[in-house]
Amino acid sequence: MDLYEAIKERRSVRKFNPDPVDDGLIEKLLDAARMAPSWSNYQCWRFLVVRDEDKRENLSRSLPENNPAAKGLVQAPVVIVLCADPSESGKQDGKDYYLLDAGLALEQLVLAAHAEGLGTCWIAWFDEESVKKVCSIPEDYRVVALTPLGVPQKQPSVKPRKDISEIAYREEWGQSFK
Amino acid sequence: MDLYEAIKERRSVRKFNPDPVDDGLIEKLLDAARMAPSWSNYQCWRFLVVRDEDKRENLSRSLPENNPAAKGLVQAPVVIVLCADPSESGKQDGKDYYLLDAGLALEQLVLAAHAEGLGTCWIAWFDEESVKKVCSIPEDYRVVALTPLGVPQKQPSVKPRKDISEIAYREEWGQSFK
Repeated sequence: MDLYEAIKERRSVRKFNPDPVDDGLIEKLLDAARMAPSWSNYQCWRFLVVRDEDKRENLSRSLPENNPAAKGLVQAPVVIVLCADPSESGKQDGKDYYLLDAGLALEQLVLAAHAEGLGTCWIAWFDEESVKKVCSIPEDYRVVALTPLGVPQKQPSVKPRKDISEIAYREEWGQSFK
Repeated sequence: MDLYEAIKERRSVRKFNPDPVDDGLIEKLLDAARMAPSWSNYQCWRFLVVRDEDKRENLSRSLPENNPAAKGLVQAPVVIVLCADPSESGKQDGKDYYLLDAGLALEQLVLAAHAEGLGTCWIAWFDEESVKKVCSIPEDYRVVALTPLGVPQKQPSVKPRKDISEIAYREEWGQSFK
């Protein structure tokens, strides 16, 4: 799939069909994710691939009650748990760059998923300790995001985006780029 | 360009030709960046497009001395300063999700740049206050990354990546995916 097509057509998907997703496909997505650039090329990211239904139910319970995203974690056949090792990234002026690194890899994963006909929807609002317990994640790693992975029930409509004039400046803050 | 081709062929570029990069191209990259998913679709990202040579020199001086990336900021005709508004993103268990949001948008920008024949190399190691001063960035925004943007002198070789067996687990931490 064309890069711009993937970027423009990708959506956050919350409803999934039960169709299976095979290991070969998941490996393709992980391969895309690991090619992202990272702080000093340290590659702090780790990925947990969860298929087990009980585990996915338990992961969904780590979300706040009535969070609409919880359902997707059970409905989709796979959940990806994105973790990071802060010691394999940098910290500058209070900014934890493992989160930026994780974002770079995650975006390649979600674009590749879309190109393969799969939907994702990254979730950050969960109880980290609960997720760690479900998947035996060590204390010194951080859980950055969860996403269901599966065949979308339908293509959701695009959510509005800020215009370039609202987010881009020229030379100095406040001088609109456009 | 095919998505996987962009993901596999993109490199961090540190040496640039002086060829100009026109506004239309930059707008295309910003358009790709703004389509990224973000915390509650808040889109905390802001982009500063710096062409002015004195400003680029000043930005390069915000890097630690002898940082090899500093040269690229002067050599390339454009520097993109990626900022974020933390109040337009979330915080969970000490994790500042504006950094993840910024990473998602930045990855779409660097992939699109590669597809357009342009090189980037994101830099996190700089003095934030100096960068803010050069571009009049308000106190409540964070400067997340700088990247030069220009025509690469050559395609650098690929840096080694961890094998999937080192970064991906199945069901539980420690059970290799592959």
